[in-house]
Amino acid sequence: MRTYLDCIPCFLRLTIEQGRLLTGDEIVHRELMNEAVKLVPGFSLGLTPPRMVKEMQEVIKRRFPNCDPYKKVKDQSNHRAMELYPMLKEKVARSEDRLLTAVELAIAGNVIDYAAKNNLNIEHEIQTILAGSFTADQKSVFEYDLFRKELADVKTILYLADNAGEIVFDRVLIEEIGTGREVIFAVRDKPILNDAIIEDAVFCGLDKICRVISSGVDSPGTVLEYCSDEFLKIFKEADMVISKGQGNYEALTEAPRKIFFLFKVKCPVIARHSGAQMGDIVLKQL
Amino acid sequence: MRTYLDCIPCFLRLTIEQGRLLTGDEIVHRELMNEAVKLVPGFSLGLTPPRMVKEMQEVIKRRFPNCDPYKKVKDQSNHRAMELYPMLKEKVARSEDRLLTAVELAIAGNVIDYAAKNNLNIEHEIQTILAGSFTADQKSVFEYDLFRKELADVKTILYLADNAGEIVFDRVLIEEIGTGREVIFAVRDKPILNDAIIEDAVFCGLDKICRVISSGVDSPGTVLEYCSDEFLKIFKEADMVISKGQGNYEALTEAPRKIFFLFKVKCPVIARHSGAQMGDIVLKQL
Repeated sequence: MRTYLDCIPCFLRLTIEQGRLLTGDEIVHRELMNEAVKLVPGFSLGLTPPRMVKEMQEVIKRRFPNCDPYKKVKDQSNHRAMELYPMLKEKVARSEDRLLTAVELAIAGNVIDYAAKNNLNIEHEIQTILAGSFTADQKSVFEYDLFRKELADVKTILYLADNAGEIVFDRVLIEEIGTGREVIFAVRDKPILNDAIIEDAVFCGLDKICRVISSGVDSPGTVLEYCSDEFLKIFKEADMVISKGQGNYEALTEAPRKIFFLFKVKCPVIARHSGAQMGDIVLKQL
Repeated sequence: MRTYLDCIPCFLRLTIEQGRLLTGDEIVHRELMNEAVKLVPGFSLGLTPPRMVKEMQEVIKRRFPNCDPYKKVKDQSNHRAMELYPMLKEKVARSEDRLLTAVELAIAGNVIDYAAKNNLNIEHEIQTILAGSFTADQKSVFEYDLFRKELADVKTILYLADNAGEIVFDRVLIEEIGTGREVIFAVRDKPILNDAIIEDAVFCGLDKICRVISSGVDSPGTVLEYCSDEFLKIFKEADMVISKGQGNYEALTEAPRKIFFLFKVKCPVIARHSGAQMGDIVLKQL
């Protein structure tokens, strides 16, 4: 998916947010903003949003090398989601359609996204997830029958992770679909926003239930140009690819293979592009 | 109120929105964005947001002199609000506390704000307004008793308008408080966003019930430095000033006189500054 002008205010918001997480010095915040806006006229809108974010991220990295502004946020998300794990498992166990419930939970877990929602009330979101199932209205683009059917013949699955915390919800889905199949769980190579990296996956026990690898990228989406050869081989050969979150969707809508995209719609640009509404849970094959 | 870094993505969003209202040419949209971001490093954040918006507005005006991108939106808002007028009057007539209901409606009318909400579902907002009264939760900053008390001794009121359409709701309040008092209704001098100007006030019949003047500004908030001498004299001498909307609040929080601010909280920066929550209706004297 190309970058839209609407994405640019959002990129700047991410820059401010990270500046504030890294220092209380308002002059530095201002300087980061000034450096970030200078990049805008040079942006190639034909490229995907995760590539643009990576480019803008250099502004943060120049000032704070090797920083991980969301480290604390990610740790909190992992801890809170792990506390929820038994409840998630119980919800699946009690369900009439275990796979459907696990898919819905995995997508719902995509709300654990500090980056997309400044004022996220995580507890409120979690209560909403645990309380109910989703209405048909919220599933206008939800190709569950296709997913279930294709899954039946699959031996290897590449699962592209999105955020820390959210990966506990992914774990619940992988535990449902992993029996008799090889699942490879791919995370970002280096910290970028609140995206999961290897240590998050290990903390949340993903390494106990499947193979965990780095995709090689430090962009907030699996941009194939940045991926490692090891990852690309698996990406090409896996029977099924499951992609979580908006960032991976943005990066991979024109990828040279079929992918099942699972995400919650958090912005109007993605809503338009995917044909869904804001807040919907999407399961869509491209 | 000073400008915060959080305001800048919002200013850019307004630039994109106006570009799209003025032309379908995406290259022009991009050029407008590029010119707008160039202004950011020169911004003095000590100044108020409406001053910054006016500065950024020059980017639009250079390309589209004498344009009024929101003309159609404003006309639609005026028409729809005038259709509602009889229902608003009935709601006040049936109320146990006519003044309270009129104040609540006037603030609720502040949702007719195309500029602050890209995806405004105006009919939904209006149904919400007509359906109910507001809960205590939504009125955490609501100095109604003070307002009622001070109003008792007042002979002249300067009423600062905000948006087209919304001014019909203002009319209902002015009809409640205008008996035995002189009310002067001040609108912007020239088109800026969806803010009301003289022709909107005349269309909505404000000139039939009070004196309508221009404040002299073409900023989306009553920035005193830009106001006409006629306006400033009235501003100084009026027994009471009622200010509608966030833009006027941003412009006037440090004004050299007491003002009653009435607005609905539409952004996190204003929420923090006013001590209210997003979505609250605020009645606050400063």
